[in-house]
Amino acid sequence: MVRSAASLIGSRGVNATSFSDVLTDSGAPRGSIYHHFPDGKKQLAQDAVRWTSDRVLAHQRAYAGTTASGVLQRFIGMWRNVVLASNGAAGCVVAGVAVDTAEDDVLIEIVRSTFRSWVALLTDQLVSAGLPGDRALSIATATLAGMEGALILCRAEGGVAPLDCVAAELLRLLPSES
Amino acid sequence: MVRSAASLIGSRGVNATSFSDVLTDSGAPRGSIYHHFPDGKKQLAQDAVRWTSDRVLAHQRAYAGTTASGVLQRFIGMWRNVVLASNGAAGCVVAGVAVDTAEDDVLIEIVRSTFRSWVALLTDQLVSAGLPGDRALSIATATLAGMEGALILCRAEGGVAPLDCVAAELLRLLPSES
Repeated sequence: MVRSAASLIGSRGVNATSFSDVLTDSGAPRGSIYHHFPDGKKQLAQDAVRWTSDRVLAHQRAYAGTTASGVLQRFIGMWRNVVLASNGAAGCVVAGVAVDTAEDDVLIEIVRSTFRSWVALLTDQLVSAGLPGDRALSIATATLAGMEGALILCRAEGGVAPLDCVAAELLRLLPSES
Repeated sequence: MVRSAASLIGSRGVNATSFSDVLTDSGAPRGSIYHHFPDGKKQLAQDAVRWTSDRVLAHQRAYAGTTASGVLQRFIGMWRNVVLASNGAAGCVVAGVAVDTAEDDVLIEIVRSTFRSWVALLTDQLVSAGLPGDRALSIATATLAGMEGALILCRAEGGVAPLDCVAAELLRLLPSES
Protein backbone atom coordinates (compact mmCIF):
# COMPACT_ATOMS: atom_id res chain seq x y z
CA MET A 1 0.00 0.00 0.00
CA VAL A 2 2.84 2.40 0.79
CA ARG A 3 4.44 1.65 -2.56
CA SER A 4 1.15 2.30 -4.34
CA ALA A 5 0.70 5.53 -2.41
CA ALA A 6 4.22 6.67 -3.30
CA SER A 7 3.57 6.00 -6.97
CA LEU A 8 0.15 7.66 -7.03
CA ILE A 9 1.20 10.71 -5.00
CA GLY A 10 4.26 11.08 -7.22
CA SER A 11 2.16 11.17 -10.34
CA ARG A 12 -0.85 13.21 -9.20
CA GLY A 13 -0.17 14.84 -5.83
CA VAL A 14 -1.54 14.13 -2.35
CA ASN A 15 -4.95 15.71 -2.75
CA ALA A 16 -5.92 13.80 -5.87
CA THR A 17 -4.82 10.49 -4.34
CA SER A 18 -7.66 8.86 -2.41
CA PHE A 19 -7.57 5.85 -0.12
CA SER A 20 -9.78 4.13 -2.69
CA ASP A 21 -7.16 4.74 -5.40
CA VAL A 22 -4.45 3.25 -3.17
CA LEU A 23 -6.59 0.21 -2.36
CA THR A 24 -7.40 -0.35 -6.02
CA ASP A 25 -3.77 0.07 -7.10
CA SER A 26 -2.35 -2.12 -4.33
CA GLY A 27 -5.12 -4.71 -4.20
CA ALA A 28 -5.19 -4.45 -0.41
CA PRO A 29 -8.48 -5.11 1.41
CA ARG A 30 -10.35 -2.00 2.54
CA GLY A 31 -10.19 -2.83 6.25
CA SER A 32 -6.41 -2.96 6.13
CA ILE A 33 -6.03 0.74 5.46
CA TYR A 34 -7.66 1.72 8.74
CA HIS A 35 -5.59 -0.91 10.53
CA HIS A 36 -2.25 0.24 9.12
CA PHE A 37 -2.97 3.97 8.81
CA PRO A 38 -5.22 4.92 11.72
CA ASP A 39 -4.22 8.58 11.27
CA GLY A 40 -5.46 8.67 7.70
CA LYS A 41 -4.09 9.96 4.45
CA LYS A 42 -1.54 12.25 6.05
CA GLN A 43 0.09 9.24 7.64
CA LEU A 44 0.02 7.40 4.33
CA ALA A 45 1.75 10.40 2.68
CA GLN A 46 4.41 10.43 5.42
CA ASP A 47 5.05 6.73 5.03
CA ALA A 48 5.18 7.07 1.23
CA VAL A 49 7.83 9.80 1.51
CA ARG A 50 9.90 7.75 4.00
CA TRP A 51 9.60 4.61 1.89
CA THR A 52 10.75 6.48 -1.21
CA SER A 53 13.58 8.20 0.65
CA ASP A 54 14.91 4.91 2.00
CA ARG A 55 14.98 3.48 -1.50
CA VAL A 56 16.67 6.56 -2.99
CA LEU A 57 19.33 6.56 -0.28
CA ALA A 58 19.96 2.82 -0.57
CA HIS A 59 20.31 3.05 -4.34
CA GLN A 60 22.70 5.99 -4.13
CA ARG A 61 24.76 4.50 -1.24
CA ALA A 62 25.37 1.42 -3.36
CA TYR A 63 27.46 3.48 -5.81
CA ALA A 64 30.76 1.66 -5.94
CA GLY A 65 32.72 3.96 -8.24
CA THR A 66 35.19 6.70 -7.40
CA THR A 67 34.41 9.60 -9.75
CA ALA A 68 32.26 12.68 -9.26
CA SER A 69 30.64 12.17 -12.65
CA GLY A 70 29.78 8.62 -11.61
CA VAL A 71 28.12 9.93 -8.42
CA LEU A 72 25.91 12.31 -10.41
CA GLN A 73 25.20 9.76 -13.13
CA ARG A 74 24.00 7.21 -10.57
CA PHE A 75 21.56 9.72 -9.04
CA ILE A 76 20.43 11.03 -12.43
CA GLY A 77 20.08 7.51 -13.85
CA MET A 78 17.68 6.54 -11.08
CA TRP A 79 15.30 9.40 -11.95
CA ARG A 80 15.77 8.78 -15.65
CA ASN A 81 14.53 5.21 -15.17
CA VAL A 82 11.49 6.51 -13.28
CA VAL A 83 10.64 8.81 -16.20
CA LEU A 84 11.25 6.13 -18.84
CA ALA A 85 9.15 3.55 -17.00
CA SER A 86 6.16 5.89 -17.00
CA ASN A 87 6.57 7.71 -20.35
CA GLY A 88 7.23 10.85 -18.35
CA ALA A 89 4.12 10.67 -16.18
CA ALA A 90 5.82 9.70 -12.91
CA GLY A 91 6.92 12.36 -10.49
CA CYS A 92 8.76 12.42 -7.20
CA VAL A 93 6.50 11.68 -4.26
CA VAL A 94 8.51 14.05 -2.08
CA ALA A 95 7.93 16.92 -4.51
CA GLY A 96 4.27 15.91 -4.83
CA VAL A 97 3.89 16.21 -1.07
CA ALA A 98 5.85 19.48 -1.01
CA VAL A 99 3.67 21.06 -3.70
CA ASP A 100 0.39 19.98 -2.15
CA THR A 101 1.02 20.52 1.55
CA ALA A 102 2.51 23.94 2.11
CA GLU A 103 0.46 24.44 5.25
CA ASP A 104 1.14 21.12 6.97
CA ASP A 105 4.11 21.53 9.29
CA VAL A 106 4.61 17.83 9.98
CA LEU A 107 4.69 16.86 6.31
CA ILE A 108 6.91 19.80 5.33
CA GLU A 109 9.38 18.81 8.07
CA ILE A 110 9.54 15.27 6.65
CA VAL A 111 10.01 16.66 3.13
CA ARG A 112 12.77 18.99 4.37
CA SER A 113 14.68 16.26 6.21
CA THR A 114 14.31 13.95 3.20
CA PHE A 115 15.74 16.46 0.73
CA ARG A 116 18.52 17.29 3.19
CA SER A 117 19.46 13.63 3.58
CA TRP A 118 19.73 13.24 -0.22
CA VAL A 119 21.86 16.38 -0.58
CA ALA A 120 24.06 15.30 2.33
CA LEU A 121 24.70 11.88 0.80
CA LEU A 122 25.50 13.34 -2.64
CA THR A 123 27.80 15.91 -1.01
CA ASP A 124 29.68 13.23 0.94
CA GLN A 125 30.09 11.14 -2.19
CA LEU A 126 31.33 14.12 -4.24
CA VAL A 127 33.85 14.99 -1.50
CA SER A 128 35.03 11.38 -1.46
CA ALA A 129 35.48 11.73 -5.22
CA GLY A 130 37.79 14.69 -4.66
CA LEU A 131 35.61 17.82 -4.81
CA PRO A 132 36.07 20.59 -2.23
CA GLY A 133 33.26 20.62 0.34
CA ASP A 134 31.68 23.90 -0.76
CA ARG A 135 31.62 22.91 -4.43
CA ALA A 136 30.26 19.48 -3.51
CA LEU A 137 27.36 20.92 -1.49
CA SER A 138 26.46 23.45 -4.17
CA ILE A 139 26.57 20.90 -6.99
CA ALA A 140 24.59 18.40 -4.92
CA THR A 141 21.86 21.00 -4.29
CA ALA A 142 21.78 22.01 -7.96
CA THR A 143 21.58 18.34 -8.96
CA LEU A 144 18.58 17.66 -6.74
CA ALA A 145 16.82 20.85 -7.89
CA GLY A 146 17.65 20.01 -11.50
CA MET A 147 16.17 16.53 -11.21
CA GLU A 148 13.01 17.70 -9.43
CA GLY A 149 12.50 20.39 -12.05
CA ALA A 150 13.32 17.97 -14.87
CA LEU A 151 10.63 15.56 -13.66
CA ILE A 152 8.10 18.39 -14.04
CA LEU A 153 9.31 19.26 -17.57
CA CYS A 154 9.36 15.56 -18.52
CA ARG A 155 5.76 15.25 -17.42
CA ALA A 156 4.83 18.21 -19.62
CA GLU A 157 6.72 16.75 -22.59
CA GLY A 158 5.74 13.14 -22.01
CA GLY A 159 9.34 12.00 -22.38
CA VAL A 160 12.87 12.05 -21.04
CA ALA A 161 14.47 14.71 -23.26
CA PRO A 162 14.39 17.57 -20.71
CA LEU A 163 16.05 15.37 -18.07
CA ASP A 164 18.83 14.39 -20.47
CA CYS A 165 19.42 18.05 -21.22
CA VAL A 166 19.60 18.95 -17.51
CA ALA A 167 21.88 15.98 -16.84
CA ALA A 168 24.37 17.10 -19.50
CA GLU A 169 24.52 20.59 -17.97
CA LEU A 170 24.97 19.25 -14.43
CA LEU A 171 27.93 17.13 -15.54
CA ARG A 172 29.53 20.26 -17.03
CA LEU A 173 29.73 21.70 -13.51
CA LEU A 174 32.32 19.11 -12.51
CA PRO A 175 36.07 19.66 -12.90
CA SER A 176 37.07 18.19 -16.26
CA GLU A 177 39.15 15.37 -14.76
CA SER A 178 36.43 14.05 -12.46
CA MET B 1 -9.87 36.00 -9.49
CA VAL B 2 -7.36 34.64 -11.98
CA ARG B 3 -4.51 36.24 -10.04
CA SER B 4 -5.79 34.70 -6.80
CA ALA B 5 -6.14 31.33 -8.49
CA ALA B 6 -2.59 31.53 -9.85
CA SER B 7 -1.25 32.33 -6.40
CA LEU B 8 -3.25 29.63 -4.62
CA ILE B 9 -2.59 26.92 -7.21
CA GLY B 10 1.10 27.82 -7.14
CA SER B 11 1.28 27.36 -3.39
CA ARG B 12 -0.95 24.33 -2.89
CA GLY B 13 -1.77 22.67 -6.22
CA VAL B 14 -4.98 22.51 -8.21
CA ASN B 15 -6.81 19.93 -6.17
CA ALA B 16 -6.43 21.71 -2.85
CA THR B 17 -7.59 25.02 -4.36
CA SER B 18 -11.35 25.38 -4.18
CA PHE B 19 -13.57 27.99 -5.78
CA SER B 20 -14.35 29.12 -2.23
CA ASP B 21 -10.65 29.72 -1.56
CA VAL B 22 -10.35 31.79 -4.73
CA LEU B 23 -13.45 33.83 -3.85
CA THR B 24 -12.19 34.47 -0.33
CA ASP B 25 -8.71 35.41 -1.54
CA SER B 26 -9.91 37.65 -4.36
CA GLY B 27 -12.95 39.14 -2.62
CA ALA B 28 -15.05 38.45 -5.73
CA PRO B 29 -18.77 37.74 -5.31
CA ARG B 30 -19.80 34.07 -5.54
CA GLY B 31 -22.01 34.54 -8.57
CA SER B 32 -19.14 35.95 -10.60
CA ILE B 33 -17.22 32.69 -10.66
CA TYR B 34 -19.98 30.86 -12.53
CA HIS B 35 -20.31 33.82 -14.88
CA HIS B 36 -16.61 34.05 -15.71
CA PHE B 37 -15.72 30.36 -15.49
CA PRO B 38 -18.72 28.38 -16.72
CA ASP B 39 -16.49 25.37 -17.34
CA GLY B 40 -15.40 25.23 -13.72
CA LYS B 41 -12.12 24.84 -11.94
CA LYS B 42 -10.31 23.37 -14.92
CA GLN B 43 -10.96 26.59 -16.83
CA LEU B 44 -9.78 28.62 -13.86
CA ALA B 45 -6.55 26.58 -13.80
CA GLN B 46 -6.06 27.15 -17.54
CA ASP B 47 -6.59 30.89 -17.17
CA ALA B 48 -4.26 31.01 -14.17
CA VAL B 49 -1.49 29.32 -16.17
CA ARG B 50 -1.99 31.66 -19.14
CA TRP B 51 -2.10 34.75 -16.90
CA THR B 52 1.12 33.68 -15.18
CA SER B 53 2.80 32.83 -18.47
CA ASP B 54 1.97 36.22 -19.98
CA ARG B 55 3.49 37.96 -16.98
CA VAL B 56 6.63 35.80 -17.03
CA LEU B 57 7.14 36.41 -20.75
CA ALA B 58 6.51 40.16 -20.47
CA HIS B 59 8.96 40.46 -17.57
CA GLN B 60 11.63 38.50 -19.40
CA ARG B 61 11.10 40.26 -22.75
CA ALA B 62 11.71 43.58 -21.04
CA TYR B 63 15.35 42.61 -20.40
CA ALA B 64 17.32 45.45 -21.94
CA GLY B 65 20.85 44.19 -21.37
CA THR B 66 23.19 42.37 -23.73
CA THR B 67 24.89 39.65 -21.67
CA ALA B 68 24.01 35.99 -21.22
CA SER B 69 24.50 36.28 -17.47
CA GLY B 70 22.07 39.22 -17.47
CA VAL B 71 19.48 37.09 -19.29
CA LEU B 72 19.71 34.34 -16.68
CA GLN B 73 19.82 36.77 -13.78
CA ARG B 74 16.63 38.47 -14.93
CA PHE B 75 14.78 35.14 -15.12
CA ILE B 76 16.25 33.91 -11.82
CA GLY B 77 15.59 37.23 -10.09
CA MET B 78 11.89 37.03 -10.92
CA TRP B 79 11.55 33.64 -9.19
CA ARG B 80 13.76 34.79 -6.34
CA ASN B 81 11.35 37.65 -5.65
CA VAL B 82 8.42 35.21 -5.66
CA VAL B 83 10.17 33.08 -3.03
CA LEU B 84 11.21 36.07 -0.92
CA ALA B 85 7.72 37.59 -0.97
CA SER B 86 6.24 34.37 0.45
CA ASN B 87 9.02 33.18 2.77
CA GLY B 88 9.47 30.25 0.43
CA ALA B 89 5.84 29.15 0.40
CA ALA B 90 4.99 30.27 -3.14
CA GLY B 91 5.37 27.89 -6.04
CA CYS B 92 4.96 28.12 -9.78
CA VAL B 93 1.35 27.73 -10.86
CA VAL B 94 2.45 25.95 -14.02
CA ALA B 95 4.34 23.34 -12.00
CA GLY B 96 1.39 23.09 -9.60
CA VAL B 97 -0.89 22.27 -12.51
CA ALA B 98 1.67 19.86 -14.00
CA VAL B 99 2.06 17.92 -10.75
CA ASP B 100 -1.67 17.68 -10.08
CA THR B 101 -3.07 16.99 -13.52
CA ALA B 102 -1.10 14.21 -15.18
CA GLU B 103 -4.24 12.72 -16.67
CA ASP B 104 -5.80 15.88 -18.12
CA ASP B 105 -4.70 16.25 -21.75
CA VAL B 106 -5.96 19.81 -22.18
CA LEU B 107 -4.17 21.14 -19.11
CA ILE B 108 -0.95 19.24 -19.86
CA GLU B 109 -0.95 20.71 -23.38
CA ILE B 110 -1.21 24.22 -21.92
CA VAL B 111 1.57 23.45 -19.44
CA ARG B 112 3.76 22.08 -22.24
CA SER B 113 3.25 25.08 -24.54
CA THR B 114 3.88 27.43 -21.60
CA PHE B 115 7.18 25.83 -20.63
CA ARG B 116 8.22 25.72 -24.30
CA SER B 117 7.48 29.43 -24.75
CA TRP B 118 9.64 30.30 -21.74
CA VAL B 119 12.53 28.11 -22.95
CA ALA B 120 12.22 29.56 -26.47
CA LEU B 121 12.41 33.12 -25.19
CA LEU B 122 15.41 32.39 -22.96
CA THR B 123 17.11 30.59 -25.86
CA ASP B 124 16.55 33.52 -28.21
CA GLN B 125 17.91 35.96 -25.65
CA LEU B 126 20.98 33.80 -24.98
CA VAL B 127 21.65 33.53 -28.72
CA SER B 128 21.32 37.32 -29.03
CA ALA B 129 23.88 37.55 -26.23
CA GLY B 130 26.30 35.49 -28.30
CA LEU B 131 25.81 31.85 -27.28
CA PRO B 132 25.66 29.12 -29.95
CA GLY B 133 22.11 27.87 -30.51
CA ASP B 134 22.60 24.39 -29.07
CA ARG B 135 24.27 25.70 -25.92
CA ALA B 136 21.58 28.35 -25.54
CA LEU B 137 18.74 25.81 -25.74
CA SER B 138 20.40 23.43 -23.31
CA ILE B 139 21.21 26.15 -20.77
CA ALA B 140 17.69 27.60 -21.11
CA THR B 141 16.16 24.18 -20.39
CA ALA B 142 18.48 23.61 -17.43
CA THR B 143 17.65 27.08 -16.10
CA LEU B 144 13.90 26.47 -16.19
CA ALA B 145 14.29 23.02 -14.60
CA GLY B 146 16.65 24.46 -12.00
CA MET B 147 14.18 27.19 -11.04
CA GLU B 148 11.19 24.84 -10.88
CA GLY B 149 13.17 22.44 -8.71
CA ALA B 150 14.55 25.27 -6.60
CA LEU B 151 11.02 26.48 -5.83
CA ILE B 152 10.26 23.03 -4.40
CA LEU B 153 13.44 23.00 -2.28
CA CYS B 154 12.76 26.59 -1.13
CA ARG B 155 9.32 25.54 0.00
CA ALA B 156 10.83 22.69 2.02
CA GLU B 157 13.44 25.00 3.57
CA GLY B 158 11.14 27.99 4.03
CA GLY B 159 13.70 30.32 2.45
CA VAL B 160 15.65 31.31 -0.63
CA ALA B 161 18.99 29.59 0.02
CA PRO B 162 18.47 26.62 -2.34
CA LEU B 163 17.52 28.97 -5.21
CA ASP B 164 20.64 31.08 -4.68
CA CYS B 165 22.74 27.93 -4.78
CA VAL B 166 21.12 26.74 -8.02
CA ALA B 167 21.47 30.23 -9.53
CA ALA B 168 25.22 30.31 -8.85
CA GLU B 169 25.66 26.93 -10.57
CA LEU B 170 23.58 27.96 -13.59
CA LEU B 171 25.72 31.05 -14.11
CA ARG B 172 28.82 28.81 -14.10
CA LEU B 173 27.49 27.17 -17.26
CA LEU B 174 28.04 30.35 -19.25
CA PRO B 175 31.29 31.13 -21.09
CA SER B 176 33.44 33.20 -18.75
CA GLU B 177 33.22 36.40 -20.80
CA SER B 178 29.43 36.47 -21.03
